[in-house]
Amino acid sequence: MKRVFFPDDFDRINKKFFNNIRKNRSFQHDPSGWLETESMASKFLDLEPRFIEYKSDYQNQLSIQKNKIINLLNNWENETLHQDNITLTNSVTSGSLITLLMLKQTGFKKIFFETPTYFGTIKQAESLGYEIEFIPAYYHENFEYPLPQNPHKNSILWTTQPRTSIGINQEKSRLSKALSEGFFLVIDEATETLFPSFLSHLSPKENKSIIKLRSFVKCLGVNGIRLSTIIHHNKYRLDLMNALEAFQGAIDLNSLEMVVRLASNTKKIQNAMEIARNQVKSNYSDIKLNCTSESIVPLNIDNGYISSIILKYQDKGQSQIKNRESLLRFFSKNNTPIILGSTMRFPIHHGFEFIKVNYFKNQTNLIGAVNLLHKFLLSDNSK
Amino acid sequence: MKRVFFPDDFDRINKKFFNNIRKNRSFQHDPSGWLETESMASKFLDLEPRFIEYKSDYQNQLSIQKNKIINLLNNWENETLHQDNITLTNSVTSGSLITLLMLKQTGFKKIFFETPTYFGTIKQAESLGYEIEFIPAYYHENFEYPLPQNPHKNSILWTTQPRTSIGINQEKSRLSKALSEGFFLVIDEATETLFPSFLSHLSPKENKSIIKLRSFVKCLGVNGIRLSTIIHHNKYRLDLMNALEAFQGAIDLNSLEMVVRLASNTKKIQNAMEIARNQVKSNYSDIKLNCTSESIVPLNIDNGYISSIILKYQDKGQSQIKNRESLLRFFSKNNTPIILGSTMRFPIHHGFEFIKVNYFKNQTNLIGAVNLLHKFLLSDNSK
Repeated sequence: MKRVFFPDDFDRINKKFFNNIRKNRSFQHDPSGWLETESMASKFLDLEPRFIEYKSDYQNQLSIQKNKIINLLNNWENETLHQDNITLTNSVTSGSLITLLMLKQTGFKKIFFETPTYFGTIKQAESLGYEIEFIPAYYHENFEYPLPQNPHKNSILWTTQPRTSIGINQEKSRLSKALSEGFFLVIDEATETLFPSFLSHLSPKENKSIIKLRSFVKCLGVNGIRLSTIIHHNKYRLDLMNALEAFQGAIDLNSLEMVVRLASNTKKIQNAMEIARNQVKSNYSDIKLNCTSESIVPLNIDNGYISSIILKYQDKGQSQIKNRESLLRFFSKNNTPIILGSTMRFPIHHGFEFIKVNYFKNQTNLIGAVNLLHKFLLSDNSK
Repeated sequence: MKRVFFPDDFDRINKKFFNNIRKNRSFQHDPSGWLETESMASKFLDLEPRFIEYKSDYQNQLSIQKNKIINLLNNWENETLHQDNITLTNSVTSGSLITLLMLKQTGFKKIFFETPTYFGTIKQAESLGYEIEFIPAYYHENFEYPLPQNPHKNSILWTTQPRTSIGINQEKSRLSKALSEGFFLVIDEATETLFPSFLSHLSPKENKSIIKLRSFVKCLGVNGIRLSTIIHHNKYRLDLMNALEAFQGAIDLNSLEMVVRLASNTKKIQNAMEIARNQVKSNYSDIKLNCTSESIVPLNIDNGYISSIILKYQDKGQSQIKNRESLLRFFSKNNTPIILGSTMRFPIHHGFEFIKVNYFKNQTNLIGAVNLLHKFLLSDNSK
């Protein structure tokens, strides 16, 4: 049959003919390129010239900015990372998508999600055709869990640090065991505020079976600035940056500049993390003082800002489903939306409910919700 | 078997219990929520309070900003769009990913890509498991192409406007025919600069089988500000916003604010588009004047800023592959990277090559490259 299309051999061509030119920016001309363009319209709109260029962590286009950001990461990780150990993304959401894609292409087919976990990652993994299994972790076992079998050594263990919706740090020995049993370990550290990070001994730079996802300012309660990073072994850099180009596009210039500026003062960021932890701790203490019933227990929060309150249903005779609906009806009547354990992927705890708490919300919201929980318990909630 | 997990029924719960509270922002309390949070760390870092909040086009969280942006879109589209007809994304790249996801969930399995097309969308469609077919379009047929068969009425026709890498506007009658033959029509209008847009008669608001992807400032040569939109029938709003949450995350605040500000002056944006078109036209004219050989033909560019130069290989006896490699070797030696037709998904044109041109590059780059093409033709390029 006659061939109609050549394969898209952009990467081959680049590698064979143009890599050094692009890398050293030793262009004589660049008629097809997307950098160093001009825009008369931009001038007309009074936009500063720096808004013209694409900012994408492709090849070494952001090497100046990455050098500055790596300084912060090296302190945070107790590590000496190189440019090729990090890939900048808009968000941890984008970072997890791009990581999932890269691992799929590498041949991984199955993901075990530690629970609780983050809903977005599950939807991403499903859409990319991964086989998915959830590992249940229970309150009465301190959310510890036995590792599943990994006989073919080609499964991913997807974890969060601090563990999402329960606010505790990872069990270090379990992660070491997972690595020794051949799991590929992805650690979503979107809300990590410890400095150095709690799992800084696990080095993606040294260990090809570890990838970390980290956000720069989300952990500080700052969400309008969008910049995150994948921390990885340099062998993954090429595939990650290619996935980035096809699945995310460029980064916002302003976010990049703001993080570069903040990263220049590592000590200040470190202090800001302490302030964030103190804010969370203080809110947690206030909630705890207000939980006067034995049936309302806020889970401890050691790190990050997302945890849960446990509610022990009074009407034990009622099914879990009926209890849930009563709870939801009560909170709906009181104009107070809540997110329940199912969304955070807690396994079913009979007679218990998990209610998500964002400790960056103010005390009025938090204590108000706790008071409603008390009222719910006193109410005729079987109706 | 004992059930270990409840399904994630966030959407059901929200719809049944909390939708109106979230919609009207009539919260009494919101302990699990992600909006209206506080950040002491943010104060400490001297960040303005507006940087704290997530900016995501989820539910009606951005209704104020969308109202202002819709004004620009209504003028651009000759249309009266509603909030639920647009979904804001970081980039057209994100927008196409989210569109592909939503259509996959709706049941679409096959995509026909008109060629040339954009490489990123192909990679996205492949990763999501779509069956893919490319429709070849040829220079000597003015890049017109016959529509493929669509017997089951459940295929997507993925197009670009203006057509990518050839800079011409779509053939309106072909698109109408595609719609009448039951294709779902996605139109990637990332580089559209006509005002009103060339395909403004095709209304996603009225026709459930059309989705348009549009960038606000990319078409003006501005790439550091990241904001794009999906224009769609309101029936897709819920699924698109859910996909957005799981696959992209929030928008950068600064980009959002800048586009809102720019959108307030529709006339100025319209003028800026004219300036962009004039810049492109002027660069095209200069390139054309410099193409003194019959073997070097810049494709006309009517709209957008991406087109191609055609090179007719001199050594007709040599295979297409050998000619390509000679060309690449020559440009490599001259420190001038070029992107060839294969990457833009031109079908093979024997004896011809397509070289991508970005008309926002300056004249030195563009004319310099044309001069190199002349030198290549004069050189002993069969070696």
